[in-house]
Amino acid sequence: MRTAIFGQGYVASILAVGLQRIKEGEIGYEGIPLADTIPKSIEDIELVLAFDIDGRKVGRRLSEIAEEYWGRIDFDCDYEVKRGFSGGMNGMWNSDGESEDLEEVIGRLVDEYERNDVEIFINLITTERVQPFFDADKMERAIKENDVARLSPSQIYFYSVAQYERQTAFINCIPAHIANDPACVRIAERNECVIFGDDGASGATPLTADILEHLHQRRRRVKCIAQFNIGGNTDFLTLQEPERNLAKEETKSSIVKDILGYDVPHFIKPTGYLEPLGDKKFVAMHIPYISFNGAEDELIITARINDSPALAGMLIDLIRLAAIAIERKEFGTVYPVNAFYMKMPGPREALATSKMRAYEMLKAWVGYESIDFGGREGLKTA
Amino acid sequence: MRTAIFGQGYVASILAVGLQRIKEGEIGYEGIPLADTIPKSIEDIELVLAFDIDGRKVGRRLSEIAEEYWGRIDFDCDYEVKRGFSGGMNGMWNSDGESEDLEEVIGRLVDEYERNDVEIFINLITTERVQPFFDADKMERAIKENDVARLSPSQIYFYSVAQYERQTAFINCIPAHIANDPACVRIAERNECVIFGDDGASGATPLTADILEHLHQRRRRVKCIAQFNIGGNTDFLTLQEPERNLAKEETKSSIVKDILGYDVPHFIKPTGYLEPLGDKKFVAMHIPYISFNGAEDELIITARINDSPALAGMLIDLIRLAAIAIERKEFGTVYPVNAFYMKMPGPREALATSKMRAYEMLKAWVGYESIDFGGREGLKTA
Amino acid sequence: MRTAIFGQGYVASILAVGLQRIKEGEIGYEGIPLADTIPKSIEDIELVLAFDIDGRKVGRRLSEIAEEYWGRIDFDCDYEVKRGFSGGMNGMWNSDGESEDLEEVIGRLVDEYERNDVEIFINLITTERVQPFFDADKMERAIKENDVARLSPSQIYFYSVAQYERQTAFINCIPAHIANDPACVRIAERNECVIFGDDGASGATPLTADILEHLHQRRRRVKCIAQFNIGGNTDFLTLQEPERNLAKEETKSSIVKDILGYDVPHFIKPTGYLEPLGDKKFVAMHIPYISFNGAEDELIITARINDSPALAGMLIDLIRLAAIAIERKEFGTVYPVNAFYMKMPGPREALATSKMRAYEMLKAWVGYESIDFGGREGLKTA
Amino acid sequence: MRTAIFGQGYVASILAVGLQRIKEGEIGYEGIPLADTIPKSIEDIELVLAFDIDGRKVGRRLSEIAEEYWGRIDFDCDYEVKRGFSGGMNGMWNSDGESEDLEEVIGRLVDEYERNDVEIFINLITTERVQPFFDADKMERAIKENDVARLSPSQIYFYSVAQYERQTAFINCIPAHIANDPACVRIAERNECVIFGDDGASGATPLTADILEHLHQRRRRVKCIAQFNIGGNTDFLTLQEPERNLAKEETKSSIVKDILGYDVPHFIKPTGYLEPLGDKKFVAMHIPYISFNGAEDELIITARINDSPALAGMLIDLIRLAAIAIERKEFGTVYPVNAFYMKMPGPREALATSKMRAYEMLKAWVGYESIDFGGREGLKTA
Repeated sequence: MRTAIFGQGYVASILAVGLQRIKEGEIGYEGIPLADTIPKSIEDIELVLAFDIDGRKVGRRLSEIAEEYWGRIDFDCDYEVKRGFSGGMNGMWNSDGESEDLEEVIGRLVDEYERNDVEIFINLITTERVQPFFDADKMERAIKENDVARLSPSQIYFYSVAQYERQTAFINCIPAHIANDPACVRIAERNECVIFGDDGASGATPLTADILEHLHQRRRRVKCIAQFNIGGNTDFLTLQEPERNLAKEETKSSIVKDILGYDVPHFIKPTGYLEPLGDKKFVAMHIPYISFNGAEDELIITARINDSPALAGMLIDLIRLAAIAIERKEFGTVYPVNAFYMKMPGPREALATSKMRAYEMLKAWVGYESIDFGGREGLKTA
Repeated sequence: MRTAIFGQGYVASILAVGLQRIKEGEIGYEGIPLADTIPKSIEDIELVLAFDIDGRKVGRRLSEIAEEYWGRIDFDCDYEVKRGFSGGMNGMWNSDGESEDLEEVIGRLVDEYERNDVEIFINLITTERVQPFFDADKMERAIKENDVARLSPSQIYFYSVAQYERQTAFINCIPAHIANDPACVRIAERNECVIFGDDGASGATPLTADILEHLHQRRRRVKCIAQFNIGGNTDFLTLQEPERNLAKEETKSSIVKDILGYDVPHFIKPTGYLEPLGDKKFVAMHIPYISFNGAEDELIITARINDSPALAGMLIDLIRLAAIAIERKEFGTVYPVNAFYMKMPGPREALATSKMRAYEMLKAWVGYESIDFGGREGLKTA
Repeated sequence: MRTAIFGQGYVASILAVGLQRIKEGEIGYEGIPLADTIPKSIEDIELVLAFDIDGRKVGRRLSEIAEEYWGRIDFDCDYEVKRGFSGGMNGMWNSDGESEDLEEVIGRLVDEYERNDVEIFINLITTERVQPFFDADKMERAIKENDVARLSPSQIYFYSVAQYERQTAFINCIPAHIANDPACVRIAERNECVIFGDDGASGATPLTADILEHLHQRRRRVKCIAQFNIGGNTDFLTLQEPERNLAKEETKSSIVKDILGYDVPHFIKPTGYLEPLGDKKFVAMHIPYISFNGAEDELIITARINDSPALAGMLIDLIRLAAIAIERKEFGTVYPVNAFYMKMPGPREALATSKMRAYEMLKAWVGYESIDFGGREGLKTA
Repeated sequence: MRTAIFGQGYVASILAVGLQRIKEGEIGYEGIPLADTIPKSIEDIELVLAFDIDGRKVGRRLSEIAEEYWGRIDFDCDYEVKRGFSGGMNGMWNSDGESEDLEEVIGRLVDEYERNDVEIFINLITTERVQPFFDADKMERAIKENDVARLSPSQIYFYSVAQYERQTAFINCIPAHIANDPACVRIAERNECVIFGDDGASGATPLTADILEHLHQRRRRVKCIAQFNIGGNTDFLTLQEPERNLAKEETKSSIVKDILGYDVPHFIKPTGYLEPLGDKKFVAMHIPYISFNGAEDELIITARINDSPALAGMLIDLIRLAAIAIERKEFGTVYPVNAFYMKMPGPREALATSKMRAYEMLKAWVGYESIDFGGREGLKTA
């Protein structure tokens, strides 16, 4: 499973570090939901290529970049980070400093994919807000017309993967609309590409979803929901920009109505940036609700959560599930996978659900008899 | 659905108050998991009889007792509380002050059941530790031999219900082993009695179960679990007695291994009594765990929960599910109901499970098409 | 102590309700720091006049307005709310609908003060950002020149009180700079007015201040501070406007450096609005710090706090301390009072301090032998 | 300042590690309240002797023991741990295996003190409950009569220090009554010994004290207090023994009435043992209270606190304050020091107080002009 990454940040580096340490037997399968229960071995994942637009990363080795986050590690494949696509205002140049149009950019990217024999792609670039196209033709026309202002880097990366002449998977872990854009899903179907997305469900929101489901199952009436998040990684820093924050807020808010069946006033969004917290964010949640006979209860949840490892652990599954989806030729997007691993599971018309329900769907989709849940369902045998 | 209650305490009174207020349209179905999704109407529940051993309650009307907890309410059936069975050391006397043996006690109880045409029974007496019999014959022998020291009030109440000549249900909401005693289950099968039990899952433990399941699904390795509970109702007061506390601790601890699939050091028990908290307990939980690449996260949950309404709301379901089980002739005990509503779901060989899994089992058991979960599963239609 | 209020909102209404209930012996002195330890009796406080600009309040009786927040109460003085000054863009008209200039507005206000024989004034209008004048002459010139755009309602109210020909006190409970504007303090000194201000220290910030002092005394090195507040009263609603929020943030942030002696990254501000929380806000705080030998500890504080009663209880003190300050002729502003009761204690050059230190200053300023702290200092007598 | 330690556990080891790291410039003064503000240099503290009764420690070097807790450190003085006094049932033998009486034990201890030229002693043995003597003569008689059953190790250690023929200090950091036993204080006065004690105020209780003071200053009426502590160090393990827990509970509970001036129902005690938490305990506190006009607020505090470094940092001060007290010849016990650093400040007739008040007393006692609080009091200069 040869994999490329867009955005060589903290998540990508922790993914590489953790994967290497697993291969060397240093750590176990903590934080990897499917662990060794599926017939795709973690050891067969290979990270072989990455793109970034940060001048301090382009041209450097994975090991040099990972060292800043973790310490010295020898990687099986110590790739050099390639220049990605920054889009928009900054213009586009090839490595000779000559101006490129979008088709040239895409050509350059696809050349790299081929050269490295990549099959699976992960989008981990900085959060950006993306305007969906809805119509595949419109999207293709925008590319052809070199309409840089209309296209975001996530869309270009996805499109380049779809253009790459083999069966592929594109795993979108940021809140950009890809699996939620019918245009992208249509293009993926046509070009034999699997999309998983959008926005990796690794933080506090999946927990909120499951707690809301817990309350819903007991028909407790939630009065309102406050969920604060504050952290010190690049993600929180960039979310200080209102436009990006909006992208994030959207994907988090949909869970309330989808799970409870009714909407309630809520405040669920990244709240601020505090550099000393680093990658380990602080989360605070407050959920007052009405119980039987009008009784007023309340739940308060606080947490310290390492953001990047939570997502990186899920990526270990998503890469392997992508390989399975390709084998099964389930091109387009795959709701039962998205529902568990994504905050805003595509396709667009799909609803958010509690992660517990999604887990059951995931198990059914995976369908392997070998999944061992420790016989925890039903009755013990005598 | 004519219902009798053993133990006219806070839960029984809030149940009566809430039910009456629903009948009068004052409140909605908050805190009643199945609400109006099953074809047994809440309005058809009738509370018609109660037993207690507290001299301040015996002989008084429901409305007088409920007034202390809530305020003046006019009940459809303002029953008078009858003298129950206190067991053990205190001796047993009939209303003429003459000594009774166990068979006489049971006879007296059954007379009341018949007089009031009761079908469904709820055990809400003070927490007690009960030694299971395992063998139905041994239990029957102990009754015959008037072995008062061996039999607890819960066992006597259950046995009296089983002796009552009609199809019945016994809902055991305290941590006594009834649904978990094969002796009781056997007797229930023979005598056409449904048992639901043991120990109503109304407090913080179901939430803990679901949170553990959430962590388990992401294969996060839980390091340990602390769960403190402190409250000011009679329940917490009596749990200050070590023997009773032990009964409680047992039912709470089993969830850890059953859900996670491995055991971890845990401290889960009622921790103390603070009268000013009243029925609204304070709960604090701490769950540190290991995520991907060895990252250390932690969850802290604090809550204020009204204990009695939480259980009373579930009783509204359990009474109706009991009526359904009787109609279906599912005598003995019913795991899919117990798994969701009970902390220590019988039968004895059953495991605890997350409440989210249990909910799916419950829905399957209920099986009505009419259950409306707001179309929240799967995809929206176009 | 005849008192007038600018801004007949929740705080003013709860102040009136609580005061009346104390007079009638219904409640005790909870939430009134100095209670009955000073020789100014709470029973001698009279609320006799209020101004507001909300059309739904002007012309109505206190009892009608308070009823919305609390229920029916008979007040000793059931005043009618007068039209205040809304300033700025809205223009100013007298009761005949004729345009007024600032001097006419001030004249109209002072007439009301005289008619009602008011001595003490409390500013409780909606949070606004105020640009200090620094120079008293400049402030007076702006009034004379009718420079409505430069003057905020708080400044006009203060100025009108200073113009009123008797010894007065102006208690500024909002984050507008009054005690922190040397111009206002100078005018107050000249015109025999006492200013207490700015911004009543009633919420979570005083607690944060004391906790920071606690850590500082143990020389623990605070790494960063997050303090989230979310509520459902008008205050939180108006703070959604960025300009007002900024005013609030300023007064809260100064505590960090002033108390710790060094600055740390912090996020301390009203975070959002959730209507169902009403006046009882939710607060969450996170303070990680370094202890001996580099150990990393952390404190998490969550709270539910009724905002308006907290401030109203302090007003019971501030009115009485204002009367004392007038008797002592301490015109201008009084730091030892401000330091305890205000978030941004004036004068401008003063620092924030922990509230515990401020309390000692307050006691020294009050100076009455009668303050009974229960002999809690020092040694018990034999 | 040559110092000996009774009980070479985690606190003693972290004290040695931290002190060495400060001497080598590796860490700063975090967690040392008086830091460099007093004219006794931290660098002049020398740890030269320790006693323990654990066979795995006796005879081993400090560096070997500290390595288990921290890692390899080179200590200026790498002392060998000596055999202490285990008392009671276990009998007493000298190094030749011959039975010793109490006077022989004391003689053996004093010999070590002299040989190592020790001046200051710290009691860090496992929590034990001690029955005070009240009368100095009775205590001396018990020693003379070799009444081993009546005397606890803490008492023997203290007595041996008092017998040692030079001016000394005995710092009692465990909940045994030493500074609170008039017998010990009398003996200390006679024999020119300074006692600081009892029970180092390093955990959550000082924070509780300051928060209660904060509420008290605002005259908020506390309804009840729950404070749970759970940890995984030896301290928590031994506190599982009810007798030891009782000793701890006593010292914690006194703060409530002493600070608030009235008692309220409270549950304040070490609650359990969870090995994976190690030295970093989890604390949860719940404090509901009544504010103005009967409003009900509540505070919830949760924390992760490294127990041993918190106490070790205070010991850096206490050793130096002991040297100052000896110079000033303040023999017996010193309330202004105890009040800040101890949970149960001696002498016996003293009350607990908030730590903020105690801090002011401490500063006054220290009395050095050089204490720099950053000019944080009062006004800034122009």
